[in-house]
Amino acid sequence: MNEFELIQHFFTRSACAQGGENIPLGIGDDCALLQIPTGHYCAVSTDSLVSGVHFPKDSPPFLLGQRVLAVAVSDLAAMGAKPLGFTLAITLEQIDTPWLQAFSEGLSAMAQHCAIALIGGDTTRGPLAMTVTVMGAVPTHHSLLRSGAQVGDLLCVSGPLGAAAAALPFVLGQVAADTVPAEAQQQLLAAYWTPQPQLELGRWLLGKASAALDISDGLLADCGHIAKASKVALQIEQARVPIAAAVLRTGGDADALQCALSGGDDYQLAFTIAASYLEALQQRFTAVQVIGRVSAGQGVQLLDSAGQSIKCAHLGYQHFQ
Amino acid sequence: MNEFELIQHFFTRSACAQGGENIPLGIGDDCALLQIPTGHYCAVSTDSLVSGVHFPKDSPPFLLGQRVLAVAVSDLAAMGAKPLGFTLAITLEQIDTPWLQAFSEGLSAMAQHCAIALIGGDTTRGPLAMTVTVMGAVPTHHSLLRSGAQVGDLLCVSGPLGAAAAALPFVLGQVAADTVPAEAQQQLLAAYWTPQPQLELGRWLLGKASAALDISDGLLADCGHIAKASKVALQIEQARVPIAAAVLRTGGDADALQCALSGGDDYQLAFTIAASYLEALQQRFTAVQVIGRVSAGQGVQLLDSAGQSIKCAHLGYQHFQ
Repeated sequence: MNEFELIQHFFTRSACAQGGENIPLGIGDDCALLQIPTGHYCAVSTDSLVSGVHFPKDSPPFLLGQRVLAVAVSDLAAMGAKPLGFTLAITLEQIDTPWLQAFSEGLSAMAQHCAIALIGGDTTRGPLAMTVTVMGAVPTHHSLLRSGAQVGDLLCVSGPLGAAAAALPFVLGQVAADTVPAEAQQQLLAAYWTPQPQLELGRWLLGKASAALDISDGLLADCGHIAKASKVALQIEQARVPIAAAVLRTGGDADALQCALSGGDDYQLAFTIAASYLEALQQRFTAVQVIGRVSAGQGVQLLDSAGQSIKCAHLGYQHFQ
Repeated sequence: MNEFELIQHFFTRSACAQGGENIPLGIGDDCALLQIPTGHYCAVSTDSLVSGVHFPKDSPPFLLGQRVLAVAVSDLAAMGAKPLGFTLAITLEQIDTPWLQAFSEGLSAMAQHCAIALIGGDTTRGPLAMTVTVMGAVPTHHSLLRSGAQVGDLLCVSGPLGAAAAALPFVLGQVAADTVPAEAQQQLLAAYWTPQPQLELGRWLLGKASAALDISDGLLADCGHIAKASKVALQIEQARVPIAAAVLRTGGDADALQCALSGGDDYQLAFTIAASYLEALQQRFTAVQVIGRVSAGQGVQLLDSAGQSIKCAHLGYQHFQ
């Protein structure tokens, strides 16, 4: 099977490449064509996952297909964008038909879940890696940036944190499977492999939240990005940070807190919003939690129950340290 | 230097990341925002280059930066699109400051040449590779696809072919530098490292040419794509295929022809167009050559001077053969 037949078979014919109302031209020409609705910008984001760095080489391909797309679509959610199309550049060591079949099925499952269509890509030979570029539509008259946080706003997260980070030892095969309850382990792995882009919440927040992003590097590090972009301080009450139940069942409290504060990879949203929206927000999105507020100053402060600042050694995951 | 500072320094501050009229929001948030002009679609294409597969590991970084962008922008040219923005996902084995500096300068040089802005990306650790996704604007009422070739149309190419393929032994260090005249070698290497996306021609062809693509896989293979998509036959007169002068100076005639027919990587355009446009076309774009025509049937036929079909053993470069 040559490159063209490979692409044809596994991607062009996959369920997620069958176009949609905003795709006048899909895969197969020099470019795909995307129709951006009138009164909207095209929101664009790119994410790469590299074998041996972001996932183990023997990762289940179906889950990998889901995750690589979810991670990228999460950036659209953080901008309040409606997903339209994505491209996939995949580098493969060899053609492994069952692997490709499962990968494209995982990709399609997440694409359908997020209502986004595969519109193009590139297939190359080399060390296993994939880059997804997502495109969506966001109204020109609203924006959901990192830079708008206002002093006095509440700081919220969209749901419980830490599960993806707590899953990592299991993903990497560093911990025997029977050391934690099977159900808890399953919940952790689901959080890691199948993050749920918070698209509905992101769109609801448009015109209401003052700043937002998705938590990929860890709560503290990502809140640092909002604080820096908005030129404010964010104060987080440690006791109000929601920790995923499965995380609490798999380790000590200190480890669980560490996962929730610095673990990253959960792809929940962190956002700042005026208190007047809180009731409507929590009625519609019951998992949303207020974890702190915006004040004058700079940086992120983690506060104990007495309101005293806690020193944080680890501010989040970074490559190339 | 950590990942964020790395991106900040080499890419966010690079000349090509300083935005433009169609970039309401550039690098730095979860997504960039692109403004697609009214009455236009967003054209999208993705290309990857992998170290050791598409370029030698010790390739000059400035040239690599130019080439990775040119290759992708060439797809916009083939659709008649006006370049707007691009993302770069780059995977690096380590932080090499002079390498990154030169790479980003090469990228910026090509970006400015093509009037396209860097709007986002991802920097990851791993085997050296890069994926560029380009976005442009193409009028909704015109299109320049592979599928519109009409029986009777002329088949044209935008300029001389074969130089990039003939450069490959020098790029790979397989041939001693002194085996060919220095000037010829320089011309070959320039064709390989700094392809010129045919943007002006592509936009001129909108509404005039019936089909077009950029020649990346080789003239014969790419003409095969037009023939298949348009459900026609393309007849190429071998004697009319323009071979780059430097190619003729570096090898035998048979090798030179092989480079021009099957070599690929030149990123000239191949297109079909009604004969009525020919005079205006060649007046404006003097390098354009008619190499054949469109007839009923299927596939690509290479014809000798007597109009007889020539058998072609090699139809172009393909990965994973």
